[in-house]
Amino acid sequence: MDKSGNAGAPAQELKEQIVYGRNAVVELLQTKPESVEKIYLQFNTSHPKLKEIIITARRLKIPCGKARMEKLTLISGTAKNQGVCALISTVTSYGLEEVLASPRNSSPLLVVLDGLEDPHNVGAIVRTAEAVAADAVILVDGKGTPINATVHKASAGALSHMRVCKVKSLVKSLDLLHDRGFLIVAADMDAEKNHTDIDWRGPIALVMGAEGAGLGSEARKRCDSVVRIPMAGCVESLNVSVATGVLLYEAMRQRLA
Amino acid sequence: MDKSGNAGAPAQELKEQIVYGRNAVVELLQTKPESVEKIYLQFNTSHPKLKEIIITARRLKIPCGKARMEKLTLISGTAKNQGVCALISTVTSYGLEEVLASPRNSSPLLVVLDGLEDPHNVGAIVRTAEAVAADAVILVDGKGTPINATVHKASAGALSHMRVCKVKSLVKSLDLLHDRGFLIVAADMDAEKNHTDIDWRGPIALVMGAEGAGLGSEARKRCDSVVRIPMAGCVESLNVSVATGVLLYEAMRQRLA
Repeated sequence: MDKSGNAGAPAQELKEQIVYGRNAVVELLQTKPESVEKIYLQFNTSHPKLKEIIITARRLKIPCGKARMEKLTLISGTAKNQGVCALISTVTSYGLEEVLASPRNSSPLLVVLDGLEDPHNVGAIVRTAEAVAADAVILVDGKGTPINATVHKASAGALSHMRVCKVKSLVKSLDLLHDRGFLIVAADMDAEKNHTDIDWRGPIALVMGAEGAGLGSEARKRCDSVVRIPMAGCVESLNVSVATGVLLYEAMRQRLA
Repeated sequence: MDKSGNAGAPAQELKEQIVYGRNAVVELLQTKPESVEKIYLQFNTSHPKLKEIIITARRLKIPCGKARMEKLTLISGTAKNQGVCALISTVTSYGLEEVLASPRNSSPLLVVLDGLEDPHNVGAIVRTAEAVAADAVILVDGKGTPINATVHKASAGALSHMRVCKVKSLVKSLDLLHDRGFLIVAADMDAEKNHTDIDWRGPIALVMGAEGAGLGSEARKRCDSVVRIPMAGCVESLNVSVATGVLLYEAMRQRLA
């Protein structure tokens, strides 16, 4: 693992890796649980090993999905998958402290995603975050889409250059960032200030809520500043990757000015 | 058809309409060719009527796609589709002159899409265009994705409020807009000026090129101003719907200031 930090994560394979078979997945959960993005199981999970896998995955907050045997065969590339396969992340994940210890910008800029479900959106956001040279994209462990091949593709290669950080608790991470002098900024259509009315030049953590659901109320309480992107028409919001782009480029405009 | 113009197009069904059967599609191409978004045909098109449909569709620049019988059955909702079905637009299409005759803004803002292929991108762009109260989204007839159910969904309802205009020739339309006092603006990573360095307050037609291919050279020659969105990282471009959002919100920022 390249932990030098400044030059970006090493180049990565565009396809996720798969581990299949009951014992192999149990072993993986014991030895490298942090590498597991998602587990797919057959619908009938009465086998004791499969039950054990589900219980362990829930405890570790690893998402589990049920799939038909045809799909498991497709994912694992073999019919001999014993009804379970695990998708392993090919992205080097950084700790939050690690990112904070080696910032890329004199005023760091972090993009925090609270459980976005659409891999196209997450990929497009990673691409934009890389384009504005943000310090890292922070994801909440076990919430939202896994970093799969679709995210890789939608990021247009940016995942190989952008540090991705997974945190256990969004609320605790925002508290930590606040204590370290970050301004925690969220977007909301009901906010009073426009996004162009705040100062984006200091250390900023921009928090984006999931499609539809938006930002959770506990996370929202942690925000120092809630801004609105002006809406002059009938629709009430933008696509989340477009909104993130508008906000990050306002930050960049102010920082370049 | 509501042509009052100012209050936006009437609310529309979210699902496209389908016409199937050889004679029905031939008839449709004779009577309402402008309403046809796309034609799907079976792989074996040796039947004279199917040949006739293909020739007519090519002449009218209506996209044709080959599909297996299972897919045609799914699209048409019946196995008795005779190997052909046509997807009919549920969006009221406006003429360019019609849009120019009833502008919504004192300085009109038009978004011109040159053959974007991904319906999610087109939908997200329509949503953003509506959010900044652009005057219309202009598409090139027979180029890029049809306005299908995916575009509708990705627009989050904005297609019901945004005027969509289809033009036969992009180049001629840009010439017309230039003659009417519009500044034709395109984005390109090799441009010298940043997007924040030009004046977005006058009448503007923003032209966005397709994913991957970018803007055609003839269209590019018609641009009065080519701007770059600054890229501070390793990736060379943004997702096209994110880029459009960044540019339209820079226009809005300047217009609100």
